[in-house]
Amino acid sequence: MSVPYPFSAIVGQQEMKLAILVAAIEPAIGGVLVLGDRGTGKSTAVRGLAALLPKMRAVRGCAYHCDPASHHSCGDCGGDRKARVERVPVPVVDLPLGASEDRVVGALDLERALGQGVKVFEPGLLAKAHRGFLYIDEVNLLEDHLVDLLIDVAASGENVVEREGLSVRHPARFVLVGSGNPEEGELRPQLLDRFGLSVEVRTPREIAERVEIVRRRDAYERDPEAFATRWSKADAAVRRQIERGRDKLATLDVSDEVLTQAARLCQAVGSDGLRGELTLMRAARAVAALDGAEQVTTAHLRQVAAPSLRHRLRRNPLDDTGSGERIERALGELFEPA
Amino acid sequence: MSVPYPFSAIVGQQEMKLAILVAAIEPAIGGVLVLGDRGTGKSTAVRGLAALLPKMRAVRGCAYHCDPASHHSCGDCGGDRKARVERVPVPVVDLPLGASEDRVVGALDLERALGQGVKVFEPGLLAKAHRGFLYIDEVNLLEDHLVDLLIDVAASGENVVEREGLSVRHPARFVLVGSGNPEEGELRPQLLDRFGLSVEVRTPREIAERVEIVRRRDAYERDPEAFATRWSKADAAVRRQIERGRDKLATLDVSDEVLTQAARLCQAVGSDGLRGELTLMRAARAVAALDGAEQVTTAHLRQVAAPSLRHRLRRNPLDDTGSGERIERALGELFEPA
Amino acid sequence: MSVPYPFSAIVGQQEMKLAILVAAIEPAIGGVLVLGDRGTGKSTAVRGLAALLPKMRAVRGCAYHCDPASHHSCGDCGGDRKARVERVPVPVVDLPLGASEDRVVGALDLERALGQGVKVFEPGLLAKAHRGFLYIDEVNLLEDHLVDLLIDVAASGENVVEREGLSVRHPARFVLVGSGNPEEGELRPQLLDRFGLSVEVRTPREIAERVEIVRRRDAYERDPEAFATRWSKADAAVRRQIERGRDKLATLDVSDEVLTQAARLCQAVGSDGLRGELTLMRAARAVAALDGAEQVTTAHLRQVAAPSLRHRLRRNPLDDTGSGERIERALGELFEPA
Amino acid sequence: MSVPYPFSAIVGQQEMKLAILVAAIEPAIGGVLVLGDRGTGKSTAVRGLAALLPKMRAVRGCAYHCDPASHHSCGDCGGDRKARVERVPVPVVDLPLGASEDRVVGALDLERALGQGVKVFEPGLLAKAHRGFLYIDEVNLLEDHLVDLLIDVAASGENVVEREGLSVRHPARFVLVGSGNPEEGELRPQLLDRFGLSVEVRTPREIAERVEIVRRRDAYERDPEAFATRWSKADAAVRRQIERGRDKLATLDVSDEVLTQAARLCQAVGSDGLRGELTLMRAARAVAALDGAEQVTTAHLRQVAAPSLRHRLRRNPLDDTGSGERIERALGELFEPA
Amino acid sequence: MSVPYPFSAIVGQQEMKLAILVAAIEPAIGGVLVLGDRGTGKSTAVRGLAALLPKMRAVRGCAYHCDPASHHSCGDCGGDRKARVERVPVPVVDLPLGASEDRVVGALDLERALGQGVKVFEPGLLAKAHRGFLYIDEVNLLEDHLVDLLIDVAASGENVVEREGLSVRHPARFVLVGSGNPEEGELRPQLLDRFGLSVEVRTPREIAERVEIVRRRDAYERDPEAFATRWSKADAAVRRQIERGRDKLATLDVSDEVLTQAARLCQAVGSDGLRGELTLMRAARAVAALDGAEQVTTAHLRQVAAPSLRHRLRRNPLDDTGSGERIERALGELFEPA
Amino acid sequence: MSVPYPFSAIVGQQEMKLAILVAAIEPAIGGVLVLGDRGTGKSTAVRGLAALLPKMRAVRGCAYHCDPASHHSCGDCGGDRKARVERVPVPVVDLPLGASEDRVVGALDLERALGQGVKVFEPGLLAKAHRGFLYIDEVNLLEDHLVDLLIDVAASGENVVEREGLSVRHPARFVLVGSGNPEEGELRPQLLDRFGLSVEVRTPREIAERVEIVRRRDAYERDPEAFATRWSKADAAVRRQIERGRDKLATLDVSDEVLTQAARLCQAVGSDGLRGELTLMRAARAVAALDGAEQVTTAHLRQVAAPSLRHRLRRNPLDDTGSGERIERALGELFEPA
Repeated sequence: MSVPYPFSAIVGQQEMKLAILVAAIEPAIGGVLVLGDRGTGKSTAVRGLAALLPKMRAVRGCAYHCDPASHHSCGDCGGDRKARVERVPVPVVDLPLGASEDRVVGALDLERALGQGVKVFEPGLLAKAHRGFLYIDEVNLLEDHLVDLLIDVAASGENVVEREGLSVRHPARFVLVGSGNPEEGELRPQLLDRFGLSVEVRTPREIAERVEIVRRRDAYERDPEAFATRWSKADAAVRRQIERGRDKLATLDVSDEVLTQAARLCQAVGSDGLRGELTLMRAARAVAALDGAEQVTTAHLRQVAAPSLRHRLRRNPLDDTGSGERIERALGELFEPA
Repeated sequence: MSVPYPFSAIVGQQEMKLAILVAAIEPAIGGVLVLGDRGTGKSTAVRGLAALLPKMRAVRGCAYHCDPASHHSCGDCGGDRKARVERVPVPVVDLPLGASEDRVVGALDLERALGQGVKVFEPGLLAKAHRGFLYIDEVNLLEDHLVDLLIDVAASGENVVEREGLSVRHPARFVLVGSGNPEEGELRPQLLDRFGLSVEVRTPREIAERVEIVRRRDAYERDPEAFATRWSKADAAVRRQIERGRDKLATLDVSDEVLTQAARLCQAVGSDGLRGELTLMRAARAVAALDGAEQVTTAHLRQVAAPSLRHRLRRNPLDDTGSGERIERALGELFEPA
Repeated sequence: MSVPYPFSAIVGQQEMKLAILVAAIEPAIGGVLVLGDRGTGKSTAVRGLAALLPKMRAVRGCAYHCDPASHHSCGDCGGDRKARVERVPVPVVDLPLGASEDRVVGALDLERALGQGVKVFEPGLLAKAHRGFLYIDEVNLLEDHLVDLLIDVAASGENVVEREGLSVRHPARFVLVGSGNPEEGELRPQLLDRFGLSVEVRTPREIAERVEIVRRRDAYERDPEAFATRWSKADAAVRRQIERGRDKLATLDVSDEVLTQAARLCQAVGSDGLRGELTLMRAARAVAALDGAEQVTTAHLRQVAAPSLRHRLRRNPLDDTGSGERIERALGELFEPA
Repeated sequence: MSVPYPFSAIVGQQEMKLAILVAAIEPAIGGVLVLGDRGTGKSTAVRGLAALLPKMRAVRGCAYHCDPASHHSCGDCGGDRKARVERVPVPVVDLPLGASEDRVVGALDLERALGQGVKVFEPGLLAKAHRGFLYIDEVNLLEDHLVDLLIDVAASGENVVEREGLSVRHPARFVLVGSGNPEEGELRPQLLDRFGLSVEVRTPREIAERVEIVRRRDAYERDPEAFATRWSKADAAVRRQIERGRDKLATLDVSDEVLTQAARLCQAVGSDGLRGELTLMRAARAVAALDGAEQVTTAHLRQVAAPSLRHRLRRNPLDDTGSGERIERALGELFEPA
Repeated sequence: MSVPYPFSAIVGQQEMKLAILVAAIEPAIGGVLVLGDRGTGKSTAVRGLAALLPKMRAVRGCAYHCDPASHHSCGDCGGDRKARVERVPVPVVDLPLGASEDRVVGALDLERALGQGVKVFEPGLLAKAHRGFLYIDEVNLLEDHLVDLLIDVAASGENVVEREGLSVRHPARFVLVGSGNPEEGELRPQLLDRFGLSVEVRTPREIAERVEIVRRRDAYERDPEAFATRWSKADAAVRRQIERGRDKLATLDVSDEVLTQAARLCQAVGSDGLRGELTLMRAARAVAALDGAEQVTTAHLRQVAAPSLRHRLRRNPLDDTGSGERIERALGELFEPA
Repeated sequence: MSVPYPFSAIVGQQEMKLAILVAAIEPAIGGVLVLGDRGTGKSTAVRGLAALLPKMRAVRGCAYHCDPASHHSCGDCGGDRKARVERVPVPVVDLPLGASEDRVVGALDLERALGQGVKVFEPGLLAKAHRGFLYIDEVNLLEDHLVDLLIDVAASGENVVEREGLSVRHPARFVLVGSGNPEEGELRPQLLDRFGLSVEVRTPREIAERVEIVRRRDAYERDPEAFATRWSKADAAVRRQIERGRDKLATLDVSDEVLTQAARLCQAVGSDGLRGELTLMRAARAVAALDGAEQVTTAHLRQVAAPSLRHRLRRNPLDDTGSGERIERALGELFEPA
């Protein structure tokens, strides 16, 4: 299906949609983890967002579609600052569970190695995802060696391949979006911690909402183009919100008061280290930017508290159904008048 | 045995035969899982259906026997719209348990790679199954890495091979038909969920029916051609029903009332996500089309409720013998006057 | 030892010898499984039968010794119907436990691949066994991947090799004979079910019988040729019985009454599916043919009931010592006057 | 140490020495298993026997040192009956625990394969052991795949190598001698059953015997040649006993009475199958031959009853310290007047 | 991010910073292990220190950046003492969890091996880390074979590669810095023992400190260069302290009294072997040197007692939260007046 | 560190030092196993001894540094008795835990195999250790396949390499010295039994001794050459003791009385087999030779009783802290007046 389901046609699932928008305007947030039942539109949202994002400028012909405005350059487009520029869609790359390491990190072009005796690197999925999104469905079932690899690359923003005499390093910065059903396998804590935000999705309980979802889905599947056309205005509005949010973001500061609130909240719920606090601050700032607000407020903080901290609480947060409630309770105790 | 056992000569097993017919006219239903005792004719039905299906039009010489009417084209027949067309049987491909990954996804033609220094792709079973059926007996015993691979391909409709410097992608859309004995190994939930319908077969209990089956089987084995000739008329009637059903399907809508009933049923039995509802709607529509009905009714819905939902209930549906009954009970409570 | 122990010199073990004779005249029976103590002459019987079977006609020089009368042809002797014909012994091929997959299915001839750059297939044990017997001692200890492979080939009658750029398929129809000691490892149910008949052998309890066995064995080992000569007449009688049985078989029908008895018996003992009934019918017919009888009777049925059904009863039939008795009891209850 | 410790200088350990002598004159006995404590001279006895055995006649230059008098011929010396003959020592080959399969069965000569493009087979340890002894210390710790392989070869007397395009078969008949400490790992029953005789060795309890052993060992190690010279007469006597035993063996028959006693004994102790009886008969005959007796008597039978049957009793014979006693008790009950 | 976070801008974490400074002036201390929560700045400190260390003199063009003043020479720069000298930054090399052995130890340059038929060694991470730091995040999750390898190299100061016909040895002396969360996997005792010092880091509990950390981190991430400039003076002060400490170290002796105190302390807390005492002495001397003191005192000893001994106490020191306290209690009992 | 720590500067650890000296003058003793805490100078002693041993005469240029006086010759220096002789240090070779099999046994020189098409053997660590010491730290953690290999080579004194078409055998006789901490993994009994002597080392308990060790170690590390010079006289005295002991050894006999005492002791403590007695005799003789005594006495026997027998007692001797005491008690009961 070449036309994806429109982002704005997704019924409900507010938390998931907000988290994806935050990641779209502040990639430093560190990825989004979507946990919940099968068949609740997790992949749909990621693909839909990608389709409405403004195209990005890239060095024409560069295997890593580098940003012409970046200080750094890859080994492909090199230092050539006069390279012609093109506009390309923001990549959304699927990393399938069974993918071989070669396919993920890239590999030696065997044909040219054997035929012409030259070592040429064939970029892999990590190269394709640079400056976009890397989407892993069933991320909790990913093999350990791929998880190690992703943690390395996500932490360093670079993919380093040193095998079979190959020695390649190229930029690989992307928003990691993982989805999974925690009932079928837990995420390793190291990978969990790499995700800035984690959201939960549930099968909707309202009959009318369910009928609406099925009806829209059927309409889309029977004629994707017509369906997409019907929602193109709504999608355009989301696109403008993203563009405005990106501009706003650079101008927003976070006050000491809000930072103190964030610290108190993290200490109250007992999250390890300070990544929770950093994420909370960045996510609140991004929500404020999406809102077009002039300053970051407690309200923005509260909106992102659960997705920022839910997966950082001690005692196996994934299957502790109470982690969201613990955050809500702490929010209530800290910020509301007795 | 080159002449398969005629589909119409199968004694009993109504639920299985209906599910296979639904998949034949609505491939989007997402595959059929047949669970039950060994020696109850599971493979026989699939092979029999394939033999009576009308031949399909294909680009002559294309390795993936592409549909000349399709918008998309593969890398083999390319964009050549003037290609000659031939009629070929709908493929039914067996995926044996011990198959190597190379055999399933295709592989580099080593001879030509070594001898002539060119990289040529030898299509595998997934290519052969395109536009037809992929049949896996003992699907519950399939190795995990093949399951991962099948889930990827079934979800995307494409087979992507990136190994040994090969980089091939080709269309691979097929109806997945799996059979197995759940007593000998459970299906992974991810694979279970990919099957639109799941049916149960049992050893028949009527002596007369058993004698009839054995007699027909013996007659068939002693002289397959003669036996097939005897049942050719009955098979032709099924073929016409399928052709009429396919035409009808495009014209049928599902009313809000039936959709609401479907949603209520799914909520009552507690299936995860909305795939159950989508399947229910599509399967009911297909049954209506097979019936030649002008609209989809509650009766159609009830006919497919068990195969659509049985494998989506919580708590290990496979060995919970009560899942079928739970659906029946919910149907009774929801739709019948007290 | 090039001269095998004569089949007719085997002392006792009637059930095993009958089952092997049945498989010799009706290969469609689906193989024989021999279970029991070590040192009871299991392999001896198979090798002895092979030695006395009439030679078979084969296309001269064909790697698969194809039947000149067959409709199908392999890739080696092709469609060449004018090929010269030779008479060759029925092959009895040992599949040793530690055999590599290459040796079983065949492999690329590496020498010619490296030296001359051509891909030539070296047929394996499955090719050698075509139209004869494949004998696996300790079949219950066979590695799982070989079991998968054998199940595939036994079900399809074809060996398909697609590896290393090889793509070969050749006919591989054989009577599978397995032997093993169930105390040392169970058979996977899938493989168990592929065997048409299963027989049990025990160490004889009569002292005189034991002395006779040891004496014959010692005589054979001290001078195999002389011993074989002494039994050549008895063996020739068995050979004639097989030849007459084969001719008779095609003319025998099974009455509804006998079929109904078979169905009742299967239902009474609770075998899964209908393979038990099919086997029962075929084995009874074969015994009738061996007897030179004009019709299949209840007596024939009773003679093969235990070997046909013993391994198909529920609840781990292999180590349930009572499965034979359950069948006997059911036979008694169904067919004998109260 | 090029001069082995003389067989006749071994102190005590009568059962072990007798078993090895039996195997030396009747290789069909099927190998000897020596079980017991470390440091009790197990390997010493095997090497010592080999050193005193008469040299054997072999086809000069044949890789398998074939017997010029044999009907069969290997692929190396072929049918060339005029080949020159040489006398070579009976081989005693060590199969080390960590040996690779290549080393055991032989392998492709890679140098000639790569350099000259020809496939040449390099014979392995099995080839070296042909017509002699294959000695495996710690046989209970041998890897399963090597055990499978040895069982195949020991059963067939042939080594079949079909790998990497190699297709070699050569004779490999040898007396398998295994030793091990059953406290450190059990033997697989299949391998256990391949050994004709099993003997037990214990650390001697007499102080004087122990001092004598240590003193002889030290004398041997300080000057092997001088020590061997001192025992050369005693060794020569053993050699003559073996030569006379071999001649005698062909002339000895076993009476029905002795065979019946053997059968009664086997039934009384409950050994599986009839291999125990065959071994008992052969071993008794060999002992009679070593004794220079004119007929096989009950006394000969009793002498070999324990080594012939000890490892064939049910219920884990290896660590059941009572198996030897059970045999003794049965002997007493059967053959002695009340 | 090319500009690392300044070492002097790290808030709190005194023990960790002191341990890293000790390792910077006395590499013989044997590495630093940092244990504690995620997100507490463990990697930040190592990278920050490296950035402020004075550059080191190296043989220009040597693959191992050898010290021109060293007696030993590697195979690359050989004995060439007239080689030109350059000043290079002290290397800080990351060893990622998923790194292949090839990448760590170096490998054959396959391109040149295949293309030109020459064996050239491509140095790996161990070569890059020579004379600097090797940093392993999540060291407790490192694969066993890499741990073995690191233990060898760390003990010998040499990397020996003998594979694929390669035979290379080159110097590889570095300060091993490992970090990890002991709750997620324990360190093997052998690796634990290789670390001279082990420090614990905790999430800070003071709200003001937390806000300050988050604020500084955000400031750094929004404009790394400006932030680094702001802290350049403070970093320069630390650099001078290191340079002075290195000079001082060579002149400092440890008195018998202090050594006796160290021995008493080690005996009191029960550390195995004498590595604890040696480390204690060296670390106390290094702290005295950093302080610019003229002699090593009990106070210096006390400052390093916990990091020197904490991981050497019996009974699983990693998860025994009381090991630090045991050391403090022993210090109190031994050195303080009652 | 090129100058090892002087053997004579080792403080305490008498049992370990004696055992190493015994092995130095009587290599037939069969290796030394050193068990105990980390950081107690186990490796130091072995390296120190090697440094003070007199150099040995070797065939110049021989890859196995063969003894010119030996009867046997390797494939490298062949039978060339006129070869020039050189004096080389006794090798002490480290076998690191992670060593590949190639590195241990030697391997094909791939470069020359590929480039020049010749098979050349690159000797491995076993070749290097011939006539010297093979030292394995953490021997209890060695991989099983390396243990098997070492047991083979240690037993036969030969390294046999038959892989990849290589067929090399070369002498490999060495004193195996293993060290390890039995708390971290047990030794396989087969390997345990290969060690002639086993000694236990403990962290010293005397404060003064500990201070002295740390002080000497620090002095050594700060200036190895100066430290070694200070101890050169003491080392020379040890060297002379070894030389005199070697000469004496050949002249010493062991009386029947002492042998009887050894046998009684072994029987009293219940060691398996007679290796304990042989070791006891040899070790007592070696100690007498080191003492310059004219005959072997009970006192010599008692000195080596614990190291000779400690690891041969039943019931898991390694972690049975009482095995040393059991030997002492038996010595007391046997040899002391009541």
